[in-house]
Amino acid sequence: MLIDTILTPALFHLHSKDIENKQVVVIDILRATTTMVVAYENGANTVVPVEHLEDALFYREQGYLIAGERNGVKVEGFDMGNSPQEFTKDIVEGRNIVLSTTNGTKAINACSAAKFRYISSFRNIDAMAKTIIENNLNVLLFCAGWKDKFNLEDTVFAGALAQQLLDNGFTTNDDATRMACSLWNLAKPNLAAFLADASHVQRFKSLHIESDLEVCLRFNTFSGVVRV
Amino acid sequence: MLIDTILTPALFHLHSKDIENKQVVVIDILRATTTMVVAYENGANTVVPVEHLEDALFYREQGYLIAGERNGVKVEGFDMGNSPQEFTKDIVEGRNIVLSTTNGTKAINACSAAKFRYISSFRNIDAMAKTIIENNLNVLLFCAGWKDKFNLEDTVFAGALAQQLLDNGFTTNDDATRMACSLWNLAKPNLAAFLADASHVQRFKSLHIESDLEVCLRFNTFSGVVRV
Repeated sequence: MLIDTILTPALFHLHSKDIENKQVVVIDILRATTTMVVAYENGANTVVPVEHLEDALFYREQGYLIAGERNGVKVEGFDMGNSPQEFTKDIVEGRNIVLSTTNGTKAINACSAAKFRYISSFRNIDAMAKTIIENNLNVLLFCAGWKDKFNLEDTVFAGALAQQLLDNGFTTNDDATRMACSLWNLAKPNLAAFLADASHVQRFKSLHIESDLEVCLRFNTFSGVVRV
Repeated sequence: MLIDTILTPALFHLHSKDIENKQVVVIDILRATTTMVVAYENGANTVVPVEHLEDALFYREQGYLIAGERNGVKVEGFDMGNSPQEFTKDIVEGRNIVLSTTNGTKAINACSAAKFRYISSFRNIDAMAKTIIENNLNVLLFCAGWKDKFNLEDTVFAGALAQQLLDNGFTTNDDATRMACSLWNLAKPNLAAFLADASHVQRFKSLHIESDLEVCLRFNTFSGVVRV
């Protein structure tokens, strides 16, 4: 089985061939796909990703909690933003939630034709790897990036996941996957330090949400996978 | 001064703003921009990059040598392919040459509005860095990639060049540049070994042109820069 890594949504078209026979993992570590994993960890019933804010408002009428950010800031009038720390057990347990984010939702929508479509984060990386291996299909690791640009944190996660797959019989012909694995092997002794210079982490600092970072870089707090 | 790295031509549009005030370095290590540097090393009068094979034929009527490849193979009836080893002193000295290649020319054409536009390779990396620093303008390191996909060898070169610029007062806010520098620092103890798995190197092996690789990874054999 083959691994390909899509570094940004702007490169998705190069990998869309035969997608109906592939499994895809969408990666938006800071913060959409981490936040979705946290919501499920804390007992949410469902988390629906949507692209447009108006779509979220439609779900509110159905009793959903609505969550969303634009440029890293919570949308006015929404129940939550996109910080995983807002998705606590007392708020999300048993609830249906709709989440609208800048980059993650765009990537999720782009690959809607995939046979299996997941979102993942460091918080459930081992479970995700296990499921990909069991599915035994070619896999696309789809980094959401930032406004179509490459970013470090999504790519490092893709490398961490790819490395587990390579260690379990998957192969790759893809330079982006090889690069992601190299980055991961460089980053893993101290992931937070490696990412300290990343653009998105700098953006976090300017928004005073550094404490989210620690939440987003925690490993295997959830043993399930999230299919979307 | 700021450094940005464009990982493939498919991401150029994200960096095209204000390009008339920037300097751009187009990178196609295997083999277009290396071959162009070798031609100048060996005394070529000029090397004109063109996208379409028909354009090359037009130049033949003006007395140019015509060189070109498609999918790594020399075009039938052309004087040379795209192997730097074909551009020897006895063939190219004092001659005008036109070169049509798959990926390099596409990138060169995309950034025609830049204030200064160069091509470079490991064979003139120090001279290129010196000129970029002297120009004292924001710089785009433009990897030609392979059919719009990311590749390792162009990115490692971008990292090597970016590292020299960072060491001389340039800065970056760009994750692609940070990643490229990380890759370069990982690769530099043994560049050939680092690239041995790269897709393009594998393609080289299948085309029996491994000896080109050694030529393409030689450092600072030329003290000039190539403006296009």
